[in-house]
Amino acid sequence: MGPRWKDNGSKATALADPMSNIVARLQSSLIQSGTCGFLSGCGVLLEISHDQVGLLNHACFGRPVTTADTDTNWFRLSLEEAFYMHHCLKCVEIIGEDKSPKRDDELWECMKLKKRTFLEFYKAYSHLRGKNWVVRSGSQYGVDFVAYRHHPALVHSEYAVIVSSEAEGHENCRLKLWSDFECTVRLSGSVAKTLLVLHIKSNENCTFSPSCLEGYTVEERTITRWSPEQRREDQPIVKAESSKG
Amino acid sequence: MGPRWKDNGSKATALADPMSNIVARLQSSLIQSGTCGFLSGCGVLLEISHDQVGLLNHACFGRPVTTADTDTNWFRLSLEEAFYMHHCLKCVEIIGEDKSPKRDDELWECMKLKKRTFLEFYKAYSHLRGKNWVVRSGSQYGVDFVAYRHHPALVHSEYAVIVSSEAEGHENCRLKLWSDFECTVRLSGSVAKTLLVLHIKSNENCTFSPSCLEGYTVEERTITRWSPEQRREDQPIVKAESSKG
Repeated sequence: MGPRWKDNGSKATALADPMSNIVARLQSSLIQSGTCGFLSGCGVLLEISHDQVGLLNHACFGRPVTTADTDTNWFRLSLEEAFYMHHCLKCVEIIGEDKSPKRDDELWECMKLKKRTFLEFYKAYSHLRGKNWVVRSGSQYGVDFVAYRHHPALVHSEYAVIVSSEAEGHENCRLKLWSDFECTVRLSGSVAKTLLVLHIKSNENCTFSPSCLEGYTVEERTITRWSPEQRREDQPIVKAESSKG
Repeated sequence: MGPRWKDNGSKATALADPMSNIVARLQSSLIQSGTCGFLSGCGVLLEISHDQVGLLNHACFGRPVTTADTDTNWFRLSLEEAFYMHHCLKCVEIIGEDKSPKRDDELWECMKLKKRTFLEFYKAYSHLRGKNWVVRSGSQYGVDFVAYRHHPALVHSEYAVIVSSEAEGHENCRLKLWSDFECTVRLSGSVAKTLLVLHIKSNENCTFSPSCLEGYTVEERTITRWSPEQRREDQPIVKAESSKG
Protein backbone atom coordinates (compact mmCIF):
# COMPACT_ATOMS: atom_id res chain seq x y z
CA MET A 1 0.00 0.00 0.00
CA GLY A 2 1.58 3.31 -1.10
CA PRO A 3 0.89 6.82 0.23
CA ARG A 4 -2.65 8.13 -0.30
CA TRP A 5 -2.24 11.84 -1.11
CA LYS A 6 -5.26 13.97 -0.31
CA ASP A 7 -5.20 16.15 -3.46
CA ASN A 8 -3.63 16.16 -6.91
CA GLY A 9 -1.06 18.77 -5.94
CA SER A 10 -0.27 17.29 -2.50
CA LYS A 11 2.67 15.16 -3.57
CA ALA A 12 4.41 18.07 -5.32
CA THR A 13 3.80 20.33 -2.30
CA ALA A 14 5.35 17.70 -0.01
CA LEU A 15 8.37 17.14 -2.28
CA ALA A 16 9.00 20.90 -2.56
CA ASP A 17 9.30 21.25 1.22
CA PRO A 18 10.45 18.00 2.88
CA MET A 19 9.56 17.41 6.53
CA SER A 20 13.26 17.51 7.52
CA ASN A 21 13.44 21.15 6.27
CA ILE A 22 10.29 22.14 8.16
CA VAL A 23 11.60 20.58 11.40
CA ALA A 24 14.99 22.30 10.91
CA ARG A 25 13.26 25.72 10.55
CA LEU A 26 11.20 25.05 13.70
CA GLN A 27 14.31 23.92 15.56
CA SER A 28 16.35 27.06 14.79
CA SER A 29 13.40 29.35 15.55
CA LEU A 30 12.79 27.74 18.96
CA ILE A 31 16.51 27.82 19.81
CA GLN A 32 16.73 31.53 18.90
CA SER A 33 13.79 32.44 21.11
CA GLY A 34 14.96 30.26 24.05
CA THR A 35 11.62 28.42 24.20
CA CYS A 36 10.44 26.80 27.43
CA GLY A 37 7.99 24.00 28.09
CA PHE A 38 6.27 23.40 31.41
CA LEU A 39 5.59 19.90 32.74
CA SER A 40 1.86 19.61 33.34
CA GLY A 41 0.19 16.28 34.09
CA CYS A 42 1.05 13.75 31.42
CA GLY A 43 2.22 16.38 28.94
CA VAL A 44 4.21 19.57 28.47
CA LEU A 45 2.81 23.06 27.84
CA LEU A 46 4.93 25.03 25.38
CA GLU A 47 4.83 28.84 25.34
CA ILE A 48 5.55 30.16 21.85
CA SER A 49 5.39 33.35 19.82
CA HIS A 50 2.69 33.99 17.22
CA ASP A 51 5.15 33.29 14.35
CA GLN A 52 6.01 29.89 15.75
CA VAL A 53 2.38 28.66 15.75
CA GLY A 54 2.51 28.01 11.99
CA LEU A 55 5.90 26.30 12.26
CA LEU A 56 4.74 23.94 15.03
CA ASN A 57 1.58 23.15 13.07
CA HIS A 58 3.61 22.45 9.92
CA ALA A 59 6.10 20.25 11.76
CA CYS A 60 3.21 18.47 13.51
CA PHE A 61 4.26 18.69 17.12
CA GLY A 62 1.59 19.02 19.81
CA ARG A 63 -1.86 20.57 19.66
CA PRO A 64 -2.79 24.25 20.18
CA VAL A 65 -4.38 25.08 23.52
CA THR A 66 -7.10 27.74 23.53
CA THR A 67 -6.81 30.24 26.38
CA ALA A 68 -8.48 33.53 27.22
CA ASP A 69 -5.09 35.26 26.92
CA THR A 70 -4.60 36.32 23.26
CA ASP A 71 -1.04 37.62 23.70
CA THR A 72 0.62 34.25 24.35
CA ASN A 73 0.24 31.03 22.39
CA TRP A 74 0.29 27.65 24.05
CA PHE A 75 0.79 24.17 22.59
CA ARG A 76 0.34 20.92 24.48
CA LEU A 77 3.01 18.33 23.68
CA SER A 78 2.86 14.62 24.53
CA LEU A 79 5.71 13.32 26.72
CA GLU A 80 7.38 11.74 23.67
CA GLU A 81 7.14 14.94 21.62
CA ALA A 82 8.50 17.06 24.46
CA PHE A 83 11.42 14.76 25.18
CA TYR A 84 12.24 14.55 21.46
CA MET A 85 12.32 18.34 21.15
CA HIS A 86 14.37 18.64 24.33
CA HIS A 87 16.78 15.72 24.03
CA CYS A 88 17.10 15.14 20.31
CA LEU A 89 16.40 18.52 18.64
CA LYS A 90 17.76 20.38 21.70
CA CYS A 91 15.44 23.31 21.00
CA VAL A 92 13.22 23.34 24.11
CA GLU A 93 14.07 23.69 27.79
CA ILE A 94 11.68 21.88 30.11
CA ILE A 95 10.66 23.47 33.42
CA GLY A 96 9.59 21.13 36.22
CA GLU A 97 6.71 21.50 38.65
CA ASP A 98 9.27 23.12 41.03
CA LYS A 99 9.79 25.91 38.40
CA SER A 100 13.46 25.03 37.76
CA PRO A 101 14.81 23.72 34.44
CA LYS A 102 15.20 19.94 34.33
CA ARG A 103 18.50 18.27 33.46
CA ASP A 104 18.37 15.47 30.85
CA ASP A 105 18.54 12.64 33.38
CA GLU A 106 16.06 14.31 35.78
CA LEU A 107 13.55 14.77 32.95
CA TRP A 108 14.11 11.18 31.82
CA GLU A 109 13.32 9.79 35.29
CA CYS A 110 10.35 12.11 35.63
CA MET A 111 8.81 11.00 32.32
CA LYS A 112 9.38 7.32 33.09
CA LEU A 113 7.45 7.87 36.33
CA LYS A 114 4.60 9.63 34.52
CA LYS A 115 4.24 6.88 31.89
CA ARG A 116 5.17 3.28 32.61
CA THR A 117 5.90 2.54 28.96
CA PHE A 118 7.72 5.83 28.27
CA LEU A 119 11.11 4.29 27.42
CA GLU A 120 9.75 1.96 24.73
CA PHE A 121 7.25 4.49 23.36
CA TYR A 122 9.93 7.20 23.18
CA LYS A 123 12.35 4.82 21.45
CA ALA A 124 9.67 4.03 18.85
CA TYR A 125 8.65 7.69 18.49
CA SER A 126 12.21 8.99 18.05
CA HIS A 127 13.02 6.11 15.67
CA LEU A 128 10.23 7.14 13.30
CA ARG A 129 10.68 10.90 13.73
CA GLY A 130 14.42 10.46 13.08
CA LYS A 131 13.51 9.02 9.68
CA ASN A 132 11.29 12.06 9.01
CA TRP A 133 7.95 10.35 9.51
CA VAL A 134 5.25 12.49 11.12
CA VAL A 135 4.11 10.59 14.22
CA ARG A 136 0.75 11.17 15.89
CA SER A 137 -1.36 9.38 18.52
CA GLY A 138 -3.08 6.28 17.15
CA SER A 139 -5.92 6.21 19.69
CA GLN A 140 -8.53 6.78 16.95
CA TYR A 141 -7.56 3.44 15.45
CA GLY A 142 -6.80 1.52 18.63
CA VAL A 143 -3.03 1.55 18.07
CA ASP A 144 -0.14 3.35 19.76
CA PHE A 145 0.85 5.73 16.92
CA VAL A 146 0.03 6.50 13.32
CA ALA A 147 2.79 7.52 10.89
CA TYR A 148 2.40 9.96 7.98
CA ARG A 149 4.79 10.47 5.06
CA HIS A 150 4.28 14.24 5.36
CA HIS A 151 1.79 16.64 6.93
CA PRO A 152 -1.68 15.09 7.63
CA ALA A 153 -3.24 17.89 5.55
CA LEU A 154 -1.48 16.47 2.47
CA VAL A 155 -1.54 12.72 2.98
CA HIS A 156 -3.43 10.03 4.92
CA SER A 157 -1.46 8.13 7.56
CA GLU A 158 0.22 5.06 6.06
CA TYR A 159 1.10 3.02 9.13
CA ALA A 160 -0.79 1.99 12.24
CA VAL A 161 2.01 1.47 14.76
CA ILE A 162 2.07 -0.83 17.77
CA VAL A 163 5.01 -0.72 20.18
CA SER A 164 5.97 -4.11 21.56
CA SER A 165 8.60 -5.12 24.08
CA GLU A 166 9.60 -8.00 26.27
CA ALA A 167 10.75 -5.71 29.08
CA GLU A 168 9.27 -6.55 32.46
CA GLY A 169 7.00 -3.79 33.72
CA HIS A 170 6.24 -2.66 30.16
CA GLU A 171 3.52 -5.32 30.01
CA ASN A 172 2.20 -4.39 26.60
CA CYS A 173 -0.04 -7.39 26.13
CA ARG A 174 -1.20 -6.24 22.68
CA LEU A 175 -1.15 -8.82 19.87
CA LYS A 176 -0.48 -11.68 22.28
CA LEU A 177 -3.87 -13.33 21.59
CA TRP A 178 -5.03 -14.35 18.11
CA SER A 179 -8.35 -12.55 18.59
CA ASP A 180 -6.55 -9.25 19.34
CA PHE A 181 -4.21 -9.86 16.41
CA GLU A 182 -7.08 -10.55 14.00
CA CYS A 183 -8.95 -7.51 15.27
CA THR A 184 -5.96 -5.17 14.80
CA VAL A 185 -4.99 -6.48 11.36
CA ARG A 186 -8.58 -6.28 10.16
CA LEU A 187 -9.14 -2.75 11.48
CA SER A 188 -5.81 -1.51 10.03
CA GLY A 189 -6.79 -2.93 6.65
CA SER A 190 -10.28 -1.46 6.76
CA VAL A 191 -8.87 2.04 7.36
CA ALA A 192 -6.27 1.52 4.59
CA LYS A 193 -3.21 1.43 6.83
CA THR A 194 -0.44 -1.12 7.13
CA LEU A 195 0.11 -2.50 10.61
CA LEU A 196 3.69 -1.75 11.71
CA VAL A 197 4.93 -3.48 14.86
CA LEU A 198 8.02 -1.87 16.38
CA HIS A 199 9.64 -4.36 18.70
CA ILE A 200 11.98 -2.64 21.18
CA LYS A 201 14.85 -4.83 22.34
CA SER A 202 17.74 -4.34 24.73
CA ASN A 203 20.32 -6.13 26.80
CA GLU A 204 20.64 -3.05 29.02
CA ASN A 205 19.54 -3.34 32.62
CA CYS A 206 20.46 0.19 33.63
CA THR A 207 17.89 2.73 32.42
CA PHE A 208 18.81 5.64 34.72
CA SER A 209 19.86 8.00 31.94
CA PRO A 210 18.63 8.63 28.39
CA SER A 211 22.03 7.45 27.13
CA CYS A 212 20.69 3.91 27.68
CA LEU A 213 18.57 4.44 24.56
CA GLU A 214 21.66 3.70 22.45
CA GLY A 215 21.62 0.16 23.81
CA TYR A 216 18.07 -0.36 22.51
CA THR A 217 17.31 -1.58 19.02
CA VAL A 218 14.09 -1.39 17.02
CA GLU A 219 12.90 -4.35 14.97
CA GLU A 220 10.37 -3.29 12.35
CA ARG A 221 7.72 -5.69 11.08
CA THR A 222 4.78 -4.87 8.85
CA ILE A 223 1.84 -7.24 8.98
CA THR A 224 -0.66 -7.63 6.18
CA ARG A 225 -3.33 -10.20 5.35
CA TRP A 226 -2.23 -12.76 2.79
CA SER A 227 -4.62 -14.00 0.19
CA PRO A 228 -3.79 -17.40 -1.32
CA GLU A 229 -5.44 -16.30 -4.58
CA GLN A 230 -3.10 -13.36 -5.04
CA ARG A 231 -0.61 -13.68 -7.93
CA ARG A 232 -0.86 -17.47 -7.73
CA GLU A 233 -0.75 -18.13 -11.45
CA ASP A 234 0.56 -14.83 -12.84
CA GLN A 235 4.18 -15.85 -13.15
CA PRO A 236 3.79 -19.32 -14.81
CA ILE A 237 1.30 -17.97 -17.39
CA VAL A 238 3.62 -15.12 -18.41
CA LYS A 239 6.50 -17.59 -18.80
CA ALA A 240 4.43 -19.99 -20.87
CA GLU A 241 3.33 -17.16 -23.15
CA SER A 242 6.83 -15.78 -23.67
CA SER A 243 8.24 -19.23 -24.46
CA LYS A 244 5.50 -19.67 -27.08
CA GLY A 245 6.30 -16.30 -28.65
CA MET B 1 -28.69 -1.39 16.77
CA GLY B 2 -31.50 -3.83 15.88
CA PRO B 3 -31.28 -7.03 13.81
CA ARG B 4 -30.26 -6.57 10.17
CA TRP B 5 -32.36 -9.08 8.21
CA LYS B 6 -30.87 -10.18 4.92
CA ASP B 7 -34.08 -10.12 2.84
CA ASN B 8 -37.61 -8.74 3.07
CA GLY B 9 -39.06 -12.12 3.94
CA SER B 10 -36.31 -13.14 6.38
CA LYS B 11 -37.98 -11.90 9.53
CA ALA B 12 -41.24 -13.75 8.77
CA THR B 13 -39.32 -16.94 7.96
CA ALA B 14 -37.46 -16.70 11.27
CA LEU B 15 -40.64 -16.01 13.28
CA ALA B 16 -42.46 -18.94 11.64
CA ASP B 17 -39.77 -21.38 12.79
CA PRO B 18 -37.99 -20.20 15.97
CA MET B 19 -34.47 -21.46 16.65
CA SER B 20 -35.69 -23.30 19.80
CA ASN B 21 -37.97 -25.47 17.59
CA ILE B 22 -35.17 -26.23 15.13
CA VAL B 23 -32.81 -27.24 17.95
CA ALA B 24 -35.56 -29.41 19.52
CA ARG B 25 -36.07 -31.26 16.20
CA LEU B 26 -32.31 -31.80 15.87
CA GLN B 27 -32.12 -32.98 19.48
CA SER B 28 -34.85 -35.63 19.14
CA SER B 29 -33.48 -36.86 15.80
CA LEU B 30 -29.94 -37.28 17.20
CA ILE B 31 -31.26 -39.05 20.33
CA GLN B 32 -33.34 -41.45 18.21
CA SER B 33 -30.36 -42.42 16.05
CA GLY B 34 -27.96 -42.73 19.03
CA THR B 35 -25.46 -40.34 17.44
CA CYS B 36 -21.77 -40.48 18.33
CA GLY B 37 -19.03 -37.87 18.13
CA PHE B 38 -15.32 -38.69 18.09
CA LEU B 39 -12.76 -36.51 19.85
CA SER B 40 -10.23 -35.39 17.26
CA GLY B 41 -7.64 -32.73 18.00
CA CYS B 42 -9.35 -29.58 19.27
CA GLY B 43 -12.76 -30.62 18.01
CA VAL B 44 -15.26 -33.45 17.69
CA LEU B 45 -16.18 -35.33 14.49
CA LEU B 46 -19.88 -36.18 14.37
CA GLU B 47 -21.14 -39.04 12.21
CA ILE B 48 -24.70 -38.37 11.03
CA SER B 49 -27.29 -39.65 8.57
CA HIS B 50 -28.11 -37.83 5.34
CA ASP B 51 -31.40 -36.51 6.80
CA GLN B 52 -29.61 -34.95 9.75
CA VAL B 53 -27.30 -32.81 7.57
CA GLY B 54 -30.06 -30.29 6.93
CA LEU B 55 -31.09 -30.25 10.61
CA LEU B 56 -27.51 -29.57 11.80
CA ASN B 57 -27.10 -26.85 9.18
CA HIS B 58 -30.39 -25.25 10.24
CA ALA B 59 -29.53 -25.39 13.92
CA CYS B 60 -26.04 -24.02 13.15
CA PHE B 61 -23.86 -26.54 14.92
CA GLY B 62 -20.47 -27.39 13.41
CA ARG B 63 -19.28 -27.38 9.82
CA PRO B 64 -19.64 -30.18 7.24
CA VAL B 65 -16.46 -32.14 6.51
CA THR B 66 -15.92 -33.24 2.91
CA THR B 67 -14.72 -36.83 2.60
CA ALA B 68 -14.27 -39.27 -0.29
CA ASP B 69 -16.86 -41.53 1.34
CA THR B 70 -20.33 -40.49 0.10
CA ASP B 71 -22.29 -42.94 2.31
CA THR B 72 -21.54 -41.26 5.65
CA ASN B 73 -21.79 -37.57 6.52
CA TRP B 74 -19.38 -35.92 8.92
CA PHE B 75 -19.60 -32.62 10.79
CA ARG B 76 -16.79 -31.02 12.73
CA LEU B 77 -17.94 -29.46 16.03
CA SER B 78 -15.95 -27.05 18.19
CA LEU B 79 -15.32 -28.20 21.78
CA GLU B 80 -18.02 -25.84 23.06
CA GLU B 81 -20.59 -27.08 20.53
CA ALA B 82 -19.79 -30.73 21.27
CA PHE B 83 -20.00 -30.31 25.03
CA TYR B 84 -23.26 -28.37 24.70
CA MET B 85 -24.83 -31.13 22.60
CA HIS B 86 -23.53 -33.80 24.98
CA HIS B 87 -24.04 -32.20 28.38
CA CYS B 88 -26.92 -29.78 27.84
CA LEU B 89 -28.98 -31.22 24.96
CA LYS B 90 -27.93 -34.79 25.91
CA CYS B 91 -28.23 -35.89 22.30
CA VAL B 92 -24.66 -36.92 21.43
CA GLU B 93 -22.36 -39.49 23.00
CA ILE B 94 -18.68 -38.59 22.77
CA ILE B 95 -16.09 -41.29 22.09
CA GLY B 96 -12.55 -40.69 23.34
CA GLU B 97 -9.27 -41.37 21.58
CA ASP B 98 -9.30 -44.77 23.40
CA LYS B 99 -12.55 -45.63 21.52
CA SER B 100 -14.68 -45.80 24.69
CA PRO B 101 -17.55 -43.41 25.51
CA LYS B 102 -16.57 -40.58 27.85
CA ARG B 103 -18.42 -39.90 31.08
CA ASP B 104 -19.44 -36.28 31.74
CA ASP B 105 -16.61 -35.55 34.18
CA GLU B 106 -14.00 -37.34 32.00
CA LEU B 107 -15.05 -35.32 28.97
CA TRP B 108 -15.02 -32.13 31.03
CA GLU B 109 -11.41 -32.70 32.19
CA CYS B 110 -10.37 -33.69 28.69
CA MET B 111 -11.77 -30.52 27.11
CA LYS B 112 -10.23 -28.31 29.79
CA LEU B 113 -6.87 -29.89 28.92
CA LYS B 114 -7.38 -29.30 25.20
CA LYS B 115 -8.32 -25.62 25.67
CA ARG B 116 -7.04 -23.57 28.59
CA THR B 117 -10.03 -21.21 28.48
CA PHE B 118 -12.63 -23.95 27.91
CA LEU B 119 -14.55 -23.42 31.17
CA GLU B 120 -15.15 -19.69 30.58
CA PHE B 121 -15.77 -20.06 26.84
CA TYR B 122 -18.23 -22.93 27.42
CA LYS B 123 -20.07 -20.95 30.10
CA ALA B 124 -20.40 -18.03 27.66
CA TYR B 125 -21.38 -20.30 24.74
CA SER B 126 -24.03 -22.21 26.70
CA HIS B 127 -25.35 -18.96 28.24
CA LEU B 128 -26.08 -17.52 24.78
CA ARG B 129 -27.26 -20.81 23.21
CA GLY B 130 -29.57 -21.34 26.19
CA LYS B 131 -31.26 -18.05 25.27
CA ASN B 132 -31.66 -19.28 21.67
CA TRP B 133 -28.92 -17.16 20.13
CA VAL B 134 -26.97 -18.79 17.31
CA VAL B 135 -23.31 -18.67 18.36
CA ARG B 136 -20.43 -18.93 15.89
CA SER B 137 -16.67 -18.32 15.98
CA GLY B 138 -15.78 -14.61 15.93
CA SER B 139 -12.28 -15.03 14.49
CA GLN B 140 -13.22 -13.10 11.33
CA TYR B 141 -13.80 -10.03 13.49
CA GLY B 142 -11.07 -10.55 16.06
CA VAL B 143 -13.49 -11.51 18.83
CA ASP B 144 -14.31 -14.78 20.61
CA PHE B 145 -17.84 -15.37 19.24
CA VAL B 146 -20.49 -13.71 17.14
CA ALA B 147 -24.19 -14.05 18.03
CA TYR B 148 -27.08 -14.19 15.54
CA ARG B 149 -30.78 -13.75 16.29
CA HIS B 150 -31.56 -16.64 13.91
CA HIS B 151 -29.82 -18.53 11.10
CA PRO B 152 -26.94 -16.59 9.44
CA ALA B 153 -28.68 -17.06 6.06
CA LEU B 154 -31.53 -14.85 7.32
CA VAL B 155 -29.83 -12.25 9.49
CA HIS B 156 -26.42 -10.63 10.04
CA SER B 157 -24.75 -11.28 13.38
CA GLU B 158 -25.77 -8.65 15.94
CA TYR B 159 -23.16 -9.07 18.65
CA ALA B 160 -19.39 -9.38 18.64
CA VAL B 161 -18.71 -11.29 21.86
CA ILE B 162 -15.62 -11.21 24.06
CA VAL B 163 -15.33 -13.60 27.00
CA SER B 164 -13.59 -12.07 30.00
CA SER B 165 -12.67 -13.53 33.36
CA GLU B 166 -10.53 -12.86 36.36
CA ALA B 167 -9.70 -16.54 36.85
CA GLU B 168 -6.01 -17.29 37.15
CA GLY B 169 -4.78 -19.35 34.24
CA HIS B 170 -7.53 -18.02 31.99
CA GLU B 171 -5.31 -15.03 31.21
CA ASN B 172 -7.60 -13.43 28.68
CA CYS B 173 -5.77 -10.13 28.42
CA ARG B 174 -8.26 -8.71 25.90
CA LEU B 175 -9.60 -5.19 26.52
CA LYS B 176 -7.12 -4.55 29.34
CA LEU B 177 -5.34 -1.79 27.38
CA TRP B 178 -7.08 1.29 26.02
CA SER B 179 -5.58 0.74 22.57
CA ASP B 180 -7.04 -2.79 22.38
CA PHE B 181 -10.35 -1.49 23.68
CA GLU B 182 -10.49 1.32 21.12
CA CYS B 183 -9.53 -1.10 18.35
CA THR B 184 -12.25 -3.61 19.27
CA VAL B 185 -15.01 -1.03 19.73
CA ARG B 186 -14.12 0.67 16.46
CA LEU B 187 -13.98 -2.58 14.48
CA SER B 188 -17.27 -3.84 15.97
CA GLY B 189 -18.92 -0.56 15.00
CA SER B 190 -17.50 -0.60 11.48
CA VAL B 191 -18.95 -4.08 10.84
CA ALA B 192 -22.30 -3.00 12.37
CA LYS B 193 -22.15 -5.17 15.47
CA THR B 194 -22.51 -4.30 19.12
CA LEU B 195 -19.62 -5.34 21.33
CA LEU B 196 -20.89 -7.70 24.03
CA VAL B 197 -18.51 -8.52 26.88
CA LEU B 198 -19.47 -11.60 28.88
CA HIS B 199 -17.68 -11.51 32.19
CA ILE B 200 -17.55 -14.95 33.81
CA LYS B 201 -17.43 -14.87 37.61
CA SER B 202 -17.25 -17.50 40.30
CA ASN B 203 -16.37 -18.15 43.90
CA GLU B 204 -15.83 -21.84 43.09
CA ASN B 205 -12.36 -23.21 43.44
CA CYS B 206 -13.22 -26.79 42.52
CA THR B 207 -13.67 -27.21 38.77
CA PHE B 208 -13.33 -31.02 38.56
CA SER B 209 -16.86 -31.65 37.31
CA PRO B 210 -19.21 -29.76 34.96
CA SER B 211 -21.57 -29.29 37.91
CA CYS B 212 -19.24 -26.44 38.97
CA LEU B 213 -20.77 -24.42 36.08
CA GLU B 214 -23.78 -23.72 38.29
CA GLY B 215 -21.51 -21.74 40.60
CA TYR B 216 -20.49 -19.46 37.73
CA THR B 217 -22.40 -16.35 36.77
CA VAL B 218 -22.34 -14.32 33.56
CA GLU B 219 -22.31 -10.53 33.65
CA GLU B 220 -23.40 -9.05 30.33
CA ARG B 221 -22.18 -5.65 29.19
CA THR B 222 -22.66 -4.10 25.77
CA ILE B 223 -20.22 -1.38 24.80
CA THR B 224 -20.98 1.29 22.21
CA ARG B 225 -19.38 4.59 21.30
CA TRP B 226 -21.11 7.56 22.80
CA SER B 227 -21.53 10.73 20.85
CA PRO B 228 -22.10 13.90 22.90
CA GLU B 229 -24.14 15.35 20.00
CA GLN B 230 -26.66 12.53 20.05
CA ARG B 231 -30.18 13.47 21.22
CA ARG B 232 -28.79 16.37 23.23
CA GLU B 233 -31.57 18.83 22.46
CA ASP B 234 -34.30 16.52 21.11
CA GLN B 235 -36.31 16.29 24.31
CA PRO B 236 -36.48 20.00 25.33
CA ILE B 237 -37.43 21.09 21.76
CA VAL B 238 -40.30 18.59 21.56
CA LYS B 239 -41.56 19.74 24.96
CA ALA B 240 -41.38 23.40 24.00
CA GLU B 241 -43.32 22.76 20.79
CA SER B 242 -46.05 20.74 22.51
CA SER B 243 -46.51 23.39 25.20
CA LYS B 244 -46.96 26.00 22.45
CA GLY B 245 -49.62 23.90 20.66
